[in-house]
Amino acid sequence: MRVALVGLGPIGLDVGRALAARPELRLVAAVDTAPALVGQSLSSHIVEASPELAIEPDLGAALARGADAVALCTSSRLARVAADLEIAIAAGAHVVSTCEQLAAPVADAAIWAQLDERARAAGVTVLGVGVNPGLVMDRLVLQLAGAQVRTTAVRVERVVDAAKRRGPLRKKVGEGLSVAEFRVGAADGRIGHVGLAESAALIARGLGWTVESYDERLEPVVAVDGRCRGIRQQGRAVVAAEDKIVLSLEMYVGAPDPHDRLVLDGDPPLDVRFTGGVQGDRGTVATVLHALLRLGRAPRGLVTVADVFC
Amino acid sequence: MRVALVGLGPIGLDVGRALAARPELRLVAAVDTAPALVGQSLSSHIVEASPELAIEPDLGAALARGADAVALCTSSRLARVAADLEIAIAAGAHVVSTCEQLAAPVADAAIWAQLDERARAAGVTVLGVGVNPGLVMDRLVLQLAGAQVRTTAVRVERVVDAAKRRGPLRKKVGEGLSVAEFRVGAADGRIGHVGLAESAALIARGLGWTVESYDERLEPVVAVDGRCRGIRQQGRAVVAAEDKIVLSLEMYVGAPDPHDRLVLDGDPPLDVRFTGGVQGDRGTVATVLHALLRLGRAPRGLVTVADVFC
Repeated sequence: MRVALVGLGPIGLDVGRALAARPELRLVAAVDTAPALVGQSLSSHIVEASPELAIEPDLGAALARGADAVALCTSSRLARVAADLEIAIAAGAHVVSTCEQLAAPVADAAIWAQLDERARAAGVTVLGVGVNPGLVMDRLVLQLAGAQVRTTAVRVERVVDAAKRRGPLRKKVGEGLSVAEFRVGAADGRIGHVGLAESAALIARGLGWTVESYDERLEPVVAVDGRCRGIRQQGRAVVAAEDKIVLSLEMYVGAPDPHDRLVLDGDPPLDVRFTGGVQGDRGTVATVLHALLRLGRAPRGLVTVADVFC
Repeated sequence: MRVALVGLGPIGLDVGRALAARPELRLVAAVDTAPALVGQSLSSHIVEASPELAIEPDLGAALARGADAVALCTSSRLARVAADLEIAIAAGAHVVSTCEQLAAPVADAAIWAQLDERARAAGVTVLGVGVNPGLVMDRLVLQLAGAQVRTTAVRVERVVDAAKRRGPLRKKVGEGLSVAEFRVGAADGRIGHVGLAESAALIARGLGWTVESYDERLEPVVAVDGRCRGIRQQGRAVVAAEDKIVLSLEMYVGAPDPHDRLVLDGDPPLDVRFTGGVQGDRGTVATVLHALLRLGRAPRGLVTVADVFC
């Protein structure tokens, strides 16, 4: 499978390295619009890449040379990746993306519906993956629910020590900001995690639950010096008049005892703990890799991890 | 979907109760050869069942009245369920079974191959499910491996307090036997858990590993009075000259701290613990239920949980 890599940030480059190590996948293009990168050989960033592969700015031109799939690692926002998705679909290429809002149809429903229609018509799959959303708080929940006769409520908590994560993540949790700066960033969407609503939607759909209301809270974790160390964020979905889905995320510098815990009330009850947690960056790279390898038997259209893996 | 329930032991009856509670599934026959059961109304065992449904001894006759699938909960041994599988396949009915040796093609390869051919020809799915094999030691391992760029070794330990389980399980772990009786039972296959080899095979196939050798050990857990309380059993699969898959099962009366632990070495490493463990009987019922609901999009033939859920 010929893969075009789009977005050469830390995650994109790690995806490229993982792809280069798999004989089933071949990196045939590397696309990034950053002037500092355009024209460089990809092999100067990914030693396993072919020295002839130059970083180029134009996805359409890259795909015109032939590619089966795009690995898209640019933005968390559906509206920001939509143009690239349209180019890929028009070129008949599947897309696997780390875009959080591609995990489930929550934000920008109109964009989602239009892309879905185009992807179906073109016979390609467009799939949002990642660890969160895409795995810990949704896909694993649905996979675990397969061990239950009945699932009555879902609670997931994810605690991440932001000190062990890449720069973009530390920025999005507001590390070093004053509380006032944090509030401004939270209000305009620069601060905070994107994906809890998507995870709640995936869980509800997979379990056949109708969400009556969904509420999300975002608070800073503040150090003694008054500066923010990160976030405490929680999404709650009400189903049948009860908080049936509660997703809690703590992501701050120095968070003790990082872990993921998935509690599924029901018959039988399940209480699952990932010691140390699923490492977000490496796990995300893994989900891109395995999704590419799964494209052959994935349904077409704008689909979710629940459609492909659950 | 019209389902015929075959085998009315404790698990079979619980499967029947779970099916009766799902509007998508309809119990249309109940089959058991035990003279004490034949002729009774199923509703005397499963209150939700239709009072007109009588327990009957002949699967072929039951299926001749029309059924889409069979839920088969009779034996752990492929050779012992093969005749019923042939009848179901000939009647064009899918099969979901708790038969441990149906989890993967390990025992009786010739029977497996022949049933697979017949099931494909008939366009039906035959699928072995359960918690172990079928979930904790294989399916969940493969699902978790989706969060890893590379999986280098797998260790699973399952600790079950047999005091909390049904009679047939307590019998198969040799509870109350002398050590000499245990050894005799272990040698002729009456004592011990069936499924570690199947789980190892599922993991290896799912991860693309070639097993060079597989070794299994079974020891009694002996109380101070010299009587057996249960088993300590371990399967080890050698891949690339290393013990890459180690599956450990402790199942005895009074086992402290029941749990399941799945450790996947690799990138990133994963260490997952199910507090209390996945309850085996209820979990098994759940896997039958969800497999029946999944038949519409399962591949045809004699398939495994890895083919259907991973």
